[in-house]
Amino acid sequence: MSISIPRGTQDILPGEVEKWQLIENKARELCEKYQYREIRTPIFEHTDLFLRGVGDTTDIVQKEMYTFEDRGGRSITLRPEGTASTVRAFVEKKMFGYANQPVKLYYMGPMFRYERPQAGRFRQFVQFGIEALGSNDPAIDAEVISLAMNLYKEMGLKKLKLIVNSLGDKESRTAHRDALVNHFKPRIGEFCKDCQNRLEKNPLRILDCKHDHEHELMKSAPSIIEYLNDFSKNYFEKLQQYLTQLDIPFEVDPNLVRGLDYYNHTAFEIMSNAEGFGAITTLCGGGRYNGLAEEIGGPETPGIGFALSIERFIAALNAEGVGLEITEGIDCYLAALGDEAKDYTVGLLQQLRLAGFSAERDYLDRKIKAQFKAADRLKAKYVAVLGDEELKNNKINVKNMATGEQVEIDLDSFIKYFQEL
Amino acid sequence: MSISIPRGTQDILPGEVEKWQLIENKARELCEKYQYREIRTPIFEHTDLFLRGVGDTTDIVQKEMYTFEDRGGRSITLRPEGTASTVRAFVEKKMFGYANQPVKLYYMGPMFRYERPQAGRFRQFVQFGIEALGSNDPAIDAEVISLAMNLYKEMGLKKLKLIVNSLGDKESRTAHRDALVNHFKPRIGEFCKDCQNRLEKNPLRILDCKHDHEHELMKSAPSIIEYLNDFSKNYFEKLQQYLTQLDIPFEVDPNLVRGLDYYNHTAFEIMSNAEGFGAITTLCGGGRYNGLAEEIGGPETPGIGFALSIERFIAALNAEGVGLEITEGIDCYLAALGDEAKDYTVGLLQQLRLAGFSAERDYLDRKIKAQFKAADRLKAKYVAVLGDEELKNNKINVKNMATGEQVEIDLDSFIKYFQEL
Repeated sequence: MSISIPRGTQDILPGEVEKWQLIENKARELCEKYQYREIRTPIFEHTDLFLRGVGDTTDIVQKEMYTFEDRGGRSITLRPEGTASTVRAFVEKKMFGYANQPVKLYYMGPMFRYERPQAGRFRQFVQFGIEALGSNDPAIDAEVISLAMNLYKEMGLKKLKLIVNSLGDKESRTAHRDALVNHFKPRIGEFCKDCQNRLEKNPLRILDCKHDHEHELMKSAPSIIEYLNDFSKNYFEKLQQYLTQLDIPFEVDPNLVRGLDYYNHTAFEIMSNAEGFGAITTLCGGGRYNGLAEEIGGPETPGIGFALSIERFIAALNAEGVGLEITEGIDCYLAALGDEAKDYTVGLLQQLRLAGFSAERDYLDRKIKAQFKAADRLKAKYVAVLGDEELKNNKINVKNMATGEQVEIDLDSFIKYFQEL
Repeated sequence: MSISIPRGTQDILPGEVEKWQLIENKARELCEKYQYREIRTPIFEHTDLFLRGVGDTTDIVQKEMYTFEDRGGRSITLRPEGTASTVRAFVEKKMFGYANQPVKLYYMGPMFRYERPQAGRFRQFVQFGIEALGSNDPAIDAEVISLAMNLYKEMGLKKLKLIVNSLGDKESRTAHRDALVNHFKPRIGEFCKDCQNRLEKNPLRILDCKHDHEHELMKSAPSIIEYLNDFSKNYFEKLQQYLTQLDIPFEVDPNLVRGLDYYNHTAFEIMSNAEGFGAITTLCGGGRYNGLAEEIGGPETPGIGFALSIERFIAALNAEGVGLEITEGIDCYLAALGDEAKDYTVGLLQQLRLAGFSAERDYLDRKIKAQFKAADRLKAKYVAVLGDEELKNNKINVKNMATGEQVEIDLDSFIKYFQEL
């Protein structure tokens, strides 16, 4: 009996994987220009990190984590997102003491959430994310947003929509929170159990509820924008000024919220406007989290970042019909006739490859005709044919597959011939 | 209280991560020349895959797997190695039907084994591996070995030792197995419990025993080499001929065994000879596994591959004192004096970056002197200084940090100036 792949996960095969490589390379290239440097944290962490860093009132923590005990009896969890781990490393490795501040990091790798598999949603998915820790300058909020936007644009996406909001600072949030409690409390009995729990713990998350989102109290709920104090208002205005300066169109959406206490000021999402993209249109989400480092045991540190899914990135490229330029074809296929010639190509092949060319030979003991077919399938630019007779005379035939032109050259100068082409 | 990283895992931080990137890039580059294409399989698989594909008599499966139940009650396991997953995907995605044969794949990513953490051994480690499925030509065995050797060499390693062995085909292995049973059976009571279990199930693994490796019967045990039939002998000789042809020195070590039934013919290991490298000298291990695809539910398919750990690769580079060339320094630091000038650099910075330059500005509201210090730490090649006064006059100062030379240029031609440098 054969064994299948776990539900909600996928194999990424040659032919498709090149898209991933292109996106990842472009992301790395942009990070280099923007001076974000890579950090790699483990695939799993102590469960406690996500309880504190993602928040124990969130769906992720309550319903979607891959949590288990290791052989030593510790509770560990496959990371459901990348920010908590990055900030854990920032605190543990004392990066707050680095001379270069802010500390600008990026990560790229698999994340895990036990969700119902559906179109565009996987239990293992890949996120690219950046985090800038140590600065409270709204210009870095704009930089973070611009890196994501430029990545999408440079890969060819056009139908993008950026929405931004401010959650304000602690003072503003507390005022807003109190207003929310007052707003919902009298009729909280009409809301779902989750919302009833959220009322005291985290009323902001009521606005996120999938179950009650049509309740009339939702629309009339007090907006954070009305509760921003002067500092928060200025911060948000400055961000908008910078986005305009950077030529990045945006909309302000006061309903864009992040439920956790340590989120503040900037929150943003980038969505796809492409037709037929489907129900889940968010490509990228991010925001400021000035209280997170403290929450997981470090010093108070301002921070902002985003995370985006490569799966949805590719889905958006497909929805917009953006073709990626994938290099195809090998430089040379070495065809051989006769046992000695075949053996000889083993060494010749290596010489070609080490000289920098992509090259292939037959490994199935095929006849010469079948070797030519294989060369065609591999889109070989040149096919070199060596027979036992040629080998004796130190010759080899090289055929240009585009022009059909054929030349016989000295076997000794074969590599040089390619280098000079 | 702060939260620490799980035991046996590590964060790879900027400053160190560049080494990983260099090795991975070189591996990808070589794979492209050799025509191995990337496959990405999930981080976890159904546990059953590893019971069958790695083998339920192995230490990995018996003692070292991260196995747990997901929320749906399925037993899943974090992959302890990459071959089983790759072959599972090969079977499930019916790659045996691809027109291009053999199917040549590579993978790169984290693997997980619950071992006692020690120098050079981690519970999460990264493997790069290749698999060639569908060919029984000893030339591809040589190709697989040469790719690993060339990767090490191109990264600068010199003190390498390659050992090879043949495990023969099924017939040879059965003959050898019987001889082993006859050899150990009379005195099996002197061996450990594990070995006693192995006697009937898998006597070859007795030779691998860490506990009994000094027992006198070990040295006198029958060697597989004596039991190779003609086909297996020829296969092994051909491999050695190709390795010689490829200029790859090797030693034959009849004690190099792989315990599982579906391993056959070629087995190899690459070790580091570097002084002070430590007890674990194996950098890379590989071999032929013609029975594996069938074992996990596919058609009979010849296969060969290797896996190597990036952690040990880096340890070997360090042991040999090989310095990797890591590009350092940014192209331009934008220093600013005054609020308007500071704001202006937000846009200028983006222009520089989108024009292809790595660039940075201050995000900590620092004085000009501190900005110059920051530029120094970032090893900026140029520092451009913009004050409110210059801004008004459409000017900017550019200082070449290597020569100390300073020029004032039009702000409008700033990007062009850099492009022409």
